[in-house]
Amino acid sequence: MFGNPYYAEKISHALANLNLPESPTNLYEPIEYILSLSGKRIRPQLVFMGASLFGYKELDDVLPASIAVEYFHNFSLMHDDIMDKAPLRRGKQTVHQKWDDNTAILSGDALLVKSYEELSKCPSKSVPALLKTFNRVALEVCEGQQHDMDFEQRNDVSQDEYIEMIRLKTSVLLGGALEMGAIIAEADVDNIQRLYDFGENLGIAFQLQDDILDTFGDPETFGKQVGGDIIANKKTILHILLKRALTEGDKTEFDAILQLNGQDSVEKVRRMKKLYDKYKIFEQANTLKEEYSSKALKNLDSISVPRENKEDLYVLADNLLHRTK
Amino acid sequence: MFGNPYYAEKISHALANLNLPESPTNLYEPIEYILSLSGKRIRPQLVFMGASLFGYKELDDVLPASIAVEYFHNFSLMHDDIMDKAPLRRGKQTVHQKWDDNTAILSGDALLVKSYEELSKCPSKSVPALLKTFNRVALEVCEGQQHDMDFEQRNDVSQDEYIEMIRLKTSVLLGGALEMGAIIAEADVDNIQRLYDFGENLGIAFQLQDDILDTFGDPETFGKQVGGDIIANKKTILHILLKRALTEGDKTEFDAILQLNGQDSVEKVRRMKKLYDKYKIFEQANTLKEEYSSKALKNLDSISVPRENKEDLYVLADNLLHRTK
Repeated sequence: MFGNPYYAEKISHALANLNLPESPTNLYEPIEYILSLSGKRIRPQLVFMGASLFGYKELDDVLPASIAVEYFHNFSLMHDDIMDKAPLRRGKQTVHQKWDDNTAILSGDALLVKSYEELSKCPSKSVPALLKTFNRVALEVCEGQQHDMDFEQRNDVSQDEYIEMIRLKTSVLLGGALEMGAIIAEADVDNIQRLYDFGENLGIAFQLQDDILDTFGDPETFGKQVGGDIIANKKTILHILLKRALTEGDKTEFDAILQLNGQDSVEKVRRMKKLYDKYKIFEQANTLKEEYSSKALKNLDSISVPRENKEDLYVLADNLLHRTK
Repeated sequence: MFGNPYYAEKISHALANLNLPESPTNLYEPIEYILSLSGKRIRPQLVFMGASLFGYKELDDVLPASIAVEYFHNFSLMHDDIMDKAPLRRGKQTVHQKWDDNTAILSGDALLVKSYEELSKCPSKSVPALLKTFNRVALEVCEGQQHDMDFEQRNDVSQDEYIEMIRLKTSVLLGGALEMGAIIAEADVDNIQRLYDFGENLGIAFQLQDDILDTFGDPETFGKQVGGDIIANKKTILHILLKRALTEGDKTEFDAILQLNGQDSVEKVRRMKKLYDKYKIFEQANTLKEEYSSKALKNLDSISVPRENKEDLYVLADNLLHRTK
């Protein structure tokens, strides 16, 4: 189990007891299905951690906001998988693959509405502020997904544009989850902002780590095929850093590697990693990741609550940033 | 202009001044596009009428809830059009046709979030109650669309199932829009319920009228091709009432008509209307419509506010139920 076992247990208990209506089956079964695919449930835990950080003890009051965040995350996965034509999610068939596109569109919509339904169960006095944060973050996640799709059609994406894309697509939801917990705990605005920034910077570092691991992870512990991003020509931070650094001579090799597909995958990964090594791309990407990790930790340091309240978040940051899979 | 010109003007002014972000273009342009396609804007006007009914005068406080309802309605059109593979909406290209499916999915998602963003701008003390109503209605609209899609695969849809489908897909949003206005006006729960019921019954009568007009409307005033539903074998209330009434002998003719397509459309409409006449389907459908109209008017009668406050709603009901297009 990941994170704080007490929160993890509360979340999985809630997700195992959804009590969704039986009908229409095609609307609610896909929701039950996607929520049953095991994930680390980091985001809903962040809501609890955001509240506990400020000494908030009424955990039952925090649960609906936590579930709202998990619902939202799964809604976005359901729709992203249609757009990306992804066949698998967490090793299982995606919803649009198991049912069809229409089912995934409409069930996703219903799940997004259900995330707001959970929000409406939060303590009344927090609802207006929670709704504002949730909306801001939800819209940014849509913007991030749009940038991600736009970038697939472009060959000139800069490092800054890439960081902005992952900030929107991934990090704002981590920051937002923490912020929502802090809102329920009625923390002051300065502390809320620092906590949000911690989540956002942590999220960027986490996503950069993801890119790094996909190519430089240990095949023994990584869980997925190492080199998958190289094989798919995915525009990761490694790809962007390399493209920018290449000499004229190596550009030819780079373009040749991008053309390889099918049977050549081992060869493709080997040749691309050789270029990455030549330009010290691992080191560059790692430095960038460390910048954001270090910003995140400074944000957490700066929050004015007793050090022991921060323990869960320091442990979480450490786990997320030094993971091997 | 439809309804109350003062509300209509406030709504179109707001929709003409959206101030959407410029980027990402592919996310926000389709939102601007669908909102620019002219509609009667009945739903957002209902929010104003629901508030005015109880003497509420702060119209600026009502505007965000009104816009939220219009955004939600357009979100549902954007996604329904993908699912129905509809090429046209209000005589113009649908979003998924003008751009593509992915754009329509993601812009629709963003528009749904933006409807909640408008909700969050409502008077704080009303926000928790508004959110509850909005969520309930939004989820029901998703259920209605799912039933509608499920019904396309079935040949045994009953009258009751059909009414339940149109109630969910169309009517709950009319009732919900009125209810939201009443919530802002802080009306009492009994009156809110009566007003909601008025909207729901009016919506069912309206939708039945829609089915009737499509076949029995005056070609001079209807605006669309009369008989379109017959040509498309659409399972309208007329279709369901006829199917239930048919003698064995006429079933053969009915099935033969359903097989006609392409060049035979005039002939197809003529033969189906002959069956409708034989079984007095127009009269039956009209009686059913009148039942719901009459329930709606009784609901409106029963609301305990001065008669003159109800004027807009009586006029609106009359316009909607005695329209010719």
